[in-house]
Formats: sequence, structure tokens, C-alpha cells
Amino acid sequence: MIKVTLIGSGNLAQHLLSAFEKSTAVELVQVFSRKKESVSHLIPFDKITDNFDDLAEADVYIIAVSDDAIAEVSLQLPFKNQLVVHTSGSASMESLSDNNRKGVFYPLQTFTKGKEVDFKNIPICIESQFNDDYNLLKKVADSISDKVFSINSEQRRSLHVSAVFVNNFVNHLYKIGSDICDGHQVPFEILQPLIRETAEKIVTLSPNEAQTGPAKRNDKTTIEAHLNFLSDENHKNIYKLLTQSIQDNGKKL
Amino acid sequence: MIKVTLIGSGNLAQHLLSAFEKSTAVELVQVFSRKKESVSHLIPFDKITDNFDDLAEADVYIIAVSDDAIAEVSLQLPFKNQLVVHTSGSASMESLSDNNRKGVFYPLQTFTKGKEVDFKNIPICIESQFNDDYNLLKKVADSISDKVFSINSEQRRSLHVSAVFVNNFVNHLYKIGSDICDGHQVPFEILQPLIRETAEKIVTLSPNEAQTGPAKRNDKTTIEAHLNFLSDENHKNIYKLLTQSIQDNGKKL
Repeated sequence: MIKVTLIGSGNLAQHLLSAFEKSTAVELVQVFSRKKESVSHLIPFDKITDNFDDLAEADVYIIAVSDDAIAEVSLQLPFKNQLVVHTSGSASMESLSDNNRKGVFYPLQTFTKGKEVDFKNIPICIESQFNDDYNLLKKVADSISDKVFSINSEQRRSLHVSAVFVNNFVNHLYKIGSDICDGHQVPFEILQPLIRETAEKIVTLSPNEAQTGPAKRNDKTTIEAHLNFLSDENHKNIYKLLTQSIQDNGKKL
Repeated sequence: MIKVTLIGSGNLAQHLLSAFEKSTAVELVQVFSRKKESVSHLIPFDKITDNFDDLAEADVYIIAVSDDAIAEVSLQLPFKNQLVVHTSGSASMESLSDNNRKGVFYPLQTFTKGKEVDFKNIPICIESQFNDDYNLLKKVADSISDKVFSINSEQRRSLHVSAVFVNNFVNHLYKIGSDICDGHQVPFEILQPLIRETAEKIVTLSPNEAQTGPAKRNDKTTIEAHLNFLSDENHKNIYKLLTQSIQDNGKKL
């Protein structure tokens, strides 16, 4: 069994904790949490510590804290030459302290507190300073997920930026769609099958092949009618910019 | 059995045709197609006509053609005072000829040629000039879908504009995500579980509650890093506008 210690008690830390508790290849030896109660519903109380000096020995220490806190937390660890990894999509591996061997263990998913996820389908992107450590991280990742990828810091940054487009920005477009429906007493749920199919479609077609709509067909009458229909200036601006972007993309091909 | 005649042979017409062929409440009496071969794999040849004068009698004539052609096709029908409906999200009911009783039968989904869809889960938005016709359209819609909504032309227009945001524009953001991945030799499939979860999340949370990311948290360091990372001016502009929109939305609440 590979001994893992988890540092952090937030959303991602709790989801990782649950996944490791089910893994047969990993022994979760300890969780560091400033507030012990925040994870005590998930793991026996004697496995939780709020003191860095009480950290038990492990094969890998996984820091699952906010990006801003990674450097500081890694500096506070009271040991040297151990394998210490962070779980961030945007922080570089180098942001970890030089006191220990560095690595990254980045599960690429949006986690909702209280909503269980099936870790088997969550891609885990791993990276390490040393080859032996990579093999260990791969075993840990394989034990909870079927989708493990070797991704360096530069590639990980590109994934993180892409994720902002396909998750944060996409969700904001859902918000705008929902606002437009609300403004006309139309239940937003009518759009949910379309939203789901839009996401499913690109499993078999590339997003480029899947593109449809007035911008793609250059249907000026419909585009004009939509712009007249929209009363919110911000919605109009987003409509114009994305329509233009779809059309320019068509020209490039 | 309600007698239905379908006019059109495109993507939506073919999906409707397959759905009606399975319905036990509807008898598909005829399909009008300028090219008989385009639907002959779906329905017996003697039920296909390419001549408006040969149209058999039906309880409802469903025009499933492109928006531009609706008015013209409805004018060419060689009868009067029958129920004639179109299937468009953006055309008003009034675009149909006054020769016949008007209505709308709008299935809100993105249809891909050759990819079968389960019509049961596709919302159908119906509208009619006369109450009796509404009841008939409701029976036809109920026979193929579990989600039938009474939606007037103004509401339908709002749905159509919303659909551009949550389908066309969302797909374009997938395209941008895919381009960013391609530019860094990262397989786009790594993002697919995130894309699916983003779409699933808003079944239980409102898009407003589901919003996460650097814009929402006002994480200026990450936003700055992302803008520096993006090399395409168009991607930068979209990133800026959507980030600003998420932040302004936060202020309004």
C-alpha cells in the first residue's frame, strides 16, 4: 500500500479523501486540516491533525489548498527530501518549496460540495521532478481514476485556460440563457435537453463539425432579429463578439 | 389516429418522420419531398410526393423547411382552411399563409444527421390560432414527447435567442478550448468529463449558483496570467468580455 497524506480540507481535498478511502492501493495515513471538524465526518478523528509537526511519514504528501497558499504550506512542512505534490491547474510545479521532491497531481473536474463524483472518469494530470516519483504518482492516480495523463506545467496551464472557456464561460452563457428565459416567463428547463446534447455531441464530432446556427450559416436576417430582440447591452456585445468569432473561424478554414 | 402530412426532407423532417413512424396515435399519411430519394430509406416510396397537387388529406400539415422557405411553401399549398404548422424557433406563426389555420410545432433540440435522438426527451413548443387546433397539436406532440409546452411566438423567440447562447455560442467556446489544447499538444478529450459535468451541474443548481472560476472569485493574478498565456487576440477579447460580464453579474446580485 502506498502511504498518502492529504493536506487541506476544502472541496477538492474532501473529494480526494473519499476516493482514497475506497482505493485498495492507497493507505490514507493522515489528513491535515486547520479545523479538524471539517473532515471528521469523512475520516476517523485520530487520523486528522492540525499541527504540521505531527505529520506522520508518508510516501507522498498531497497539498490540496488554494493556489495562493501552496508555496507557504509547502514551506511549512517540517521535513526534507520527501515527495510533495500540489493539485492545482494553474500553479507551476516550481511554486513548491525546494525542501522536498516536487510533483503535481491535478484532477481536472469541477467539484461541488456534497455532490459525489465518480473519480474513475475524472482525468488526473500528473507531473514530477524525478522519474521514480512519476511512477509512484501514476500508481496513486491509477488507483482512483481510469484516465491518467502525463502533462507538463506548460500543457497544464493550457488545460487550465481551456477549462475557463469550456466550464466558467460556458456556465456564464447558461446564465445569460436563463436570464433571457426569465425575462419572458419561459421555464429554463426547456433548454436543458439542448444543453446536454450540445455537450454530448462533441464526444463524436469535433466542435468545429458540430457548429450550427445563424452565425455559422451567415444568416443576417436572424442575427439582426436576435440583436433587436436583446434588450441588455452586455448580452448584445457578447452576441456580436461570438457571432463575429464564429464567422472569422469559418473564413480561416 | 391523427393523420399527419410532413412537408420537407431535411434534418428535422427526417427525425420527425422517424418519430411519427413509431407513434401509435399518429398516422403519417404522406411526406412531401422535392427529391423523393432523400426520404425513401425511411418511408415507403408510394407515401412520398414531389407535387403539391398530389397532397392527400390530413388533419395537420407540418412544414419542416428552412425559415426562408416557410412563407412560400405555405402559399403553394393547394387547399384552404386546413391546419398548417411550421417547426421553426424564430419564424412567427404569422409568417404562414392566411389560406389555412395556423400553428407552430417547434421541437427544441439540435439534430445531427444520422444520429438518432430520443424524441421522448425533446421539448416540443406548440402554439395555434384556434383552441381546437391546440388540442390536436398537443395530442400529436404528446404521442412522441414527454415534454410538451404551450409557448407563444414572443416566448418562442426568447427561447430561440437563448438557444443561440447555450448551444451555438457554447459550442464555439468548446472550439476555442479545443484550439488552445491543440496549440499545446494536449488531447482535448481530457476536457470532456468537465464539459459533461458543467452541463449536468445546472440540472440541480442554477447557473448562477454553479458559477466558479477566477472571474467569479475576482482572482486578478490568475486572470492576468491567463491573458498573458493567450496568444490569439480574438481569444483574449472573448476572455476579457466574459470575465467582465461574470464580474458585473456578481455586482448586480
